[in-house]
Formats: sequence, C-alpha cells, structure tokens
Amino acid sequence: MSTSRTEAFSDGVFAIAATLLVLELKVPQVEPGGLADALLDNWPSYATYVVSFLTIGIIWVNHHAVMERIRKVDRPLLFMNLVFLMAVAVLPFPTALLADYLQAGHDELLAAAVYGGSMTLMGVTFGRIWAYAVLSGDLLHEGVDPARARRSLWFFAAGNPLYVLAIGASLLSATLALAIYALLALFYLFDVLPPLKQGDMEEGARET
Amino acid sequence: MSTSRTEAFSDGVFAIAATLLVLELKVPQVEPGGLADALLDNWPSYATYVVSFLTIGIIWVNHHAVMERIRKVDRPLLFMNLVFLMAVAVLPFPTALLADYLQAGHDELLAAAVYGGSMTLMGVTFGRIWAYAVLSGDLLHEGVDPARARRSLWFFAAGNPLYVLAIGASLLSATLALAIYALLALFYLFDVLPPLKQGDMEEGARET
Amino acid sequence: MSTSRTEAFSDGVFAIAATLLVLELKVPQVEPGGLADALLDNWPSYATYVVSFLTIGIIWVNHHAVMERIRKVDRPLLFMNLVFLMAVAVLPFPTALLADYLQAGHDELLAAAVYGGSMTLMGVTFGRIWAYAVLSGDLLHEGVDPARARRSLWFFAAGNPLYVLAIGASLLSATLALAIYALLALFYLFDVLPPLKQGDMEEGARET
Amino acid sequence: MSTSRTEAFSDGVFAIAATLLVLELKVPQVEPGGLADALLDNWPSYATYVVSFLTIGIIWVNHHAVMERIRKVDRPLLFMNLVFLMAVAVLPFPTALLADYLQAGHDELLAAAVYGGSMTLMGVTFGRIWAYAVLSGDLLHEGVDPARARRSLWFFAAGNPLYVLAIGASLLSATLALAIYALLALFYLFDVLPPLKQGDMEEGARET
Repeated sequence: MSTSRTEAFSDGVFAIAATLLVLELKVPQVEPGGLADALLDNWPSYATYVVSFLTIGIIWVNHHAVMERIRKVDRPLLFMNLVFLMAVAVLPFPTALLADYLQAGHDELLAAAVYGGSMTLMGVTFGRIWAYAVLSGDLLHEGVDPARARRSLWFFAAGNPLYVLAIGASLLSATLALAIYALLALFYLFDVLPPLKQGDMEEGARET
Repeated sequence: MSTSRTEAFSDGVFAIAATLLVLELKVPQVEPGGLADALLDNWPSYATYVVSFLTIGIIWVNHHAVMERIRKVDRPLLFMNLVFLMAVAVLPFPTALLADYLQAGHDELLAAAVYGGSMTLMGVTFGRIWAYAVLSGDLLHEGVDPARARRSLWFFAAGNPLYVLAIGASLLSATLALAIYALLALFYLFDVLPPLKQGDMEEGARET
Repeated sequence: MSTSRTEAFSDGVFAIAATLLVLELKVPQVEPGGLADALLDNWPSYATYVVSFLTIGIIWVNHHAVMERIRKVDRPLLFMNLVFLMAVAVLPFPTALLADYLQAGHDELLAAAVYGGSMTLMGVTFGRIWAYAVLSGDLLHEGVDPARARRSLWFFAAGNPLYVLAIGASLLSATLALAIYALLALFYLFDVLPPLKQGDMEEGARET
Repeated sequence: MSTSRTEAFSDGVFAIAATLLVLELKVPQVEPGGLADALLDNWPSYATYVVSFLTIGIIWVNHHAVMERIRKVDRPLLFMNLVFLMAVAVLPFPTALLADYLQAGHDELLAAAVYGGSMTLMGVTFGRIWAYAVLSGDLLHEGVDPARARRSLWFFAAGNPLYVLAIGASLLSATLALAIYALLALFYLFDVLPPLKQGDMEEGARET
C-alpha cells in the first residue's frame, strides 16, 4: 500500500481530534454579572486546550515528515499506525480530565499523570513507526541515508524519559506538569529526521 | 464514477466515526480522592473504545484493498457503500451502550448483543460490496484474477457465522462477547483478497 | 478556482454532518431489565437517523455529479456552495428535533415541518448551484450539452413542490411526512444530469 | 514541505469546525404546545450559527487563495498556520457563549466582546501568515507580483481596526456587534490578493 492513503486517513484523525478539543470548553451557567469571573476561573480549560491542540498539530507535522521518508506501508506498519492514531484520537479525554480537576482543585495530580501517560503513549507509538521503518531497511525511501536514519532514533528515544520526568513532576504540581508538556511539544518542533534528497526522489518519480 | 472520490468520502466517515468514539469517554465527577477508583471502574469504556477503534481501522484497511480492486463505481455500488458507511458511522452508539451497561452491571447481555448486531451489519454490508463487484464481472479491475476473486467471497462469508456465534456468546457473558469481537477484528487483519497484478495496472494506466 | 478544492471541502462537510448524526442517538438510562423496551421506544431516533444519513449521502453523490460538469468555480458560486453546505451541516439539528418530539408524542407535527423546511432549503440551495452554472454558460464543462443541461433544470425544480407537499403532509402526520422524506431521498437517486462526454474530456485533458 | 498537505490538514479543520457548530443548536425541552415559542426564542443560536459558519467558510476561501500564492511552507509558517487553525477551531466555543447569553438576556455584552476577540484573533493570525510569506520573499509563488503582494498587506491590516470597532460596539449592544461581525465576514468576500499569473504557473508546472 502506498503511503498517500495512510496519510490521508491519518490527517483526518489528526484534524478531527484537534478540532473536537473545543467540545471540552463548556459555556458556564452563571447569575447575572458573573460571567467574567466564571470565564477566568476556566483558565485550565484554555491552557489544556492550547497544549493539546499544539501537541497534535506538531505531531502531525512530524508524522508527515516520517511518512515522506517511507517508501511503502506494509500490514504491520498499518497496524502500528492505527495504534498510534488511537493514542492521538483519545487525547480529548485526558485533556478534559486534567482541565476539570485542575479547576476542581482536587485529584489534579492523578489527572496530570493520566494526561502525561496519554502523551507518552502517543510519543512511544509514534517512535515505534519510525523505528520499524528504519530497521526494516526495505520500507525506507531511497533518498534517505540509512546511517543517519538510525542515528535519528536516539532523538526519538530521548523524548520518552522527558515524558516520564513530566509524569513524575505531576506528583508535585499539576500546573508544573502541564508547563513541561507544553515545552515538550515545542521540543518536537525541531526537525531531526535525516534530509530527503529531493533530486533522487524526483528522478525516481520520473522513472516510474 | 471513479473510485477515488468514493474512497475520499469513505475515508472521511471512517476517520470521523473512529475519532468520535472518544466522546463516549466521560470525565467522572467524584469526591476528593475518588478519581483513581472512578477511572478504574470505567474500564468497560476503555475496552469498548479500543475494540471499536481497531475494528473501524482494520475495516478501513480492507475497504481500501477492495476499492483498489474495483475499476469503477456504478449507482448500485454507490448506494451499497452508503449503507455500509451508515453501519460504520453508527458504531459509536452501540459502543457507548455496551460500555454503559457493562458498567451498570445489568442489561449488559442485551447491550452486547446489540453491539454484535451492529458489527455483523458492518460485516454483511461490506461483504455485499465485494460480492457485487466480483459477480458483476464488469466492475472488477483487470489486474484481478476473477476465479480467485470468487473464491475470496468464501472467506468474507466465513466471518458472518462467527459474528452470529459472538452474539450467541453475549447471552452468556458480555465480556466474553467483547473478547470475541476483539478477536474477530484481528481476524480481518488477514489479507485474503486476490493480489492486484501491479505490472498490468501500470501498463493499463499508461495506455489510458 | 478549480472545482477539486471545493469538492474536497464539501466532501468534508458531507462526511462530518452525516457522521455527527450518531450523536443524536442517546443511550437510554433504565432500571434493570428495562433496556429492551427503552431501545424499542427509541425507534424515531433510528428512523430519522437512516433518512438523514441516506439523504446526505445521496445529495453527496449528486453534488459530485454536478461539480464534475462544472469547469471552474467563481466567487458567487463559491458563496452559493457555502450556503448550501450550511443547509447540509445544520441537518443534525432538525433530525434530533424530529426524533425527540416523535418520541415525546407532542409537537411532532411542527418538528416534522421544521425537518421538511431544512430538507427543502438543502434542495433549493443545491438546485441554485446547478442553475447558476447552467445559465452562466461560461462555467459549464465543455463535455456537457447546454440544451440538455437546461432541460435538466426542470427535474431539479420538480423536487421542490414535492418537499412542499411533504411539509403539508406533516400537518396530518409526522410519520407520514418522514416516510415521504425517505421516498424523496430515493427520488434523488435517479441520475438526471446530462452525460459528460468522456472522450472529449480526456482529449481536453491531454491537450492542456 | 509543499503547500498541498498543509492545505489538506487545514481544510479538515475548517470543515470540522464549521460542521461542529451545529452541536450548539440544542433541542428545546417543552410542555405540549410550547415548541413554536421555544424555537423562536432560540433565534440567537441560529443567528450566531449563520455568522460563524459563513465566517469560517469565507476565511477558508481566502486561506486557499493565500496558499495558492505560496510556493513552499517552512517550519515557522507551519507553526503560524497551526496557531491560526487553533483560532478557527475554537470558534464554536465563543459562538455558543454568545448564543447562550443573548438568550439569557444578561452578560451578553461581555459574551459579544469575547466573540469579537476570537474573530480578531482569527483575522490577526491569518494576516500574519500572508505577511510572513510576502516579506520573506523566498516563499512567494513566482507568479505573484511582489510589489502588489506588499500593497495587499494594507487591506489585511485594515480589517483589524474594524474588528476592534466591533468589539467596542459590543459594549453598547450585543446584537449590533453581531451584525457588524456578519458585515465583516462579507467584507472578506472581496478578493484583494494579487492575481496569480496562470500562464507562468502552468509553464513552470510543465517544466518541472
């Protein structure tokens, strides 16, 4: 199976999961004059919304970069991608959980840890896709340098202890943990994949 | 009508139905300190989420494989595809039903049977698309061996009694039934369609 | 602007509106043993779900057929398409309204009329797109016979009085009205657009 | 990264955000005979639905026009686009807020200001994408006249004070503010981007 259809389906899940996050933002029911305070009290909803939306968005960018470097998709890879997408699609749930308990002012440490666990699952299942493609040899795009691809796996692996650290931080403070998750999203903004030699790719496309 | 537009619309429905499943996961409202227990009590929601998400994902893979082997889509096929997509899109409802009644601890046998009925409907309407294409002769892609295509219909048909069996099992235990549905999803991971001779296809594409 | 991007956006709205219909199906909260009756009592939800899903699906097929016969999209046409999509996207609301009041057993005639009004709006705004393209002369695909295109407008216009009739029927019985809406959806299954001369189109594509 | 994948993801967010707006329309629960009045009382929901849907639709058209004039997307532009999409995706929340408080008859001035703030954020983050592409020099499509592109930035900037004005108007009357937002959406219907010289583009495409 070519990667284009897999990308299209994945894009759909990314876009829907990111957009569904808005359903977590509830209109507060207040007495006359109480709206301003109620909206301000809702800050955890806005903060978790922003962190989750940007995380999904940035992981979308990286998923596309990975798929561009994969030549074809076999059944195990399809299945790994499904499990990864499930981790992405579930994100609105821990997001709502963290927002609600940050606002409730109790049980927020557990909620932050669950949120972190969900983020970690997303990171691990995503790294697994790239690792499988790199180590298979056969699935990698010919324009990708295999040695550099293998080295890039270290960077992917580096994110996981950071997530574990953030889950640990959530035992101290849920807002601190949320701040770390925001930083981790920005960490993934770096482009660490080996470059795709465009000349080769276009030549290959012309030959086919 | 070409198959590509039908696939795009179908992909949209698959991706949305799979992603909407998360709305079934409700944030529990608890007294301070009660979150851990409440989250654990919610296990039926997570189990049904995983089974439904993977089932939709795997049937998406198979739908794509079927569409690849179909040359063009006529009006009856479009209509059959619509009915199939309706069975896919409705899945969040029986999923929520089963999760809620597994947790409530009553009426869960009926809920599991409804869930199984919904799965069976998905399987039957999907098999119908492939059967129609194979038996029409005209709609099948030229790179597909007609004899092998006809034999593959037996495999499709084989899934249906298994679903009926699972519905029967739901009269004994709803969790047993759910486990069988999970196994059936994995059963559909097998690729049983006749191979598409790529060389022929590309040649055909060049000629057109 | 080419039609392909307009189609992609429209397909998204069609697929999402159709799939969101499932959120209208609510899990009933019952005493032990009461689920079977509660599910049967919910028949209006299932009936309206099926009618709305198929209507959106069939109008998607027809929208694609219209777009295939349009060469390019200008700003007025884009705006008309937006208004049409708004009528499609709003359908889950009258669907839920009709389902709820059919089940409540009161005010269902008004709910059926609102549902019909929504369907009529969808039909009228859709017909307007085709009429604008046909009458502009410039926007029509070269493979379409202008005289036959103009004649097809009569068929489009014919659907509207039928919808008005159905709204009238809803003053007598909401279920009768729903049955008529179901028949009207099937009525739109007929392919009445002038054929697109494929040979010309492919030749044109080769020349470009 | 090419613009086509960015467009596909953005289209998904636009289509989903626009279609999710319907979830804001709630079926009223009334005593027998009370449905007509309840539906009429809900006018703010319909008015805000129409304004928000058309605004998203029109900004989709403009986003496509901007993307057509951009040759490639770099990481900063991807990030700006994500922030813009977040502003689009959040719109169902201020829409529901304004609808609810217009109907409640209190705190509606603040709700209208929040709605306007959300619209302004969408306008500012969208303008930023175009400004970045124009001022970078490198990212602009070769078929675009740089001098005209720079002049078009004034038009984009012109919308922002109008939004601030509308937010100011919301201190006087929420319905007045809503009317201004509707007019501003129509204001963006004007096509002010420099034309894309098609001949050059097609020639370029042929050469590649």
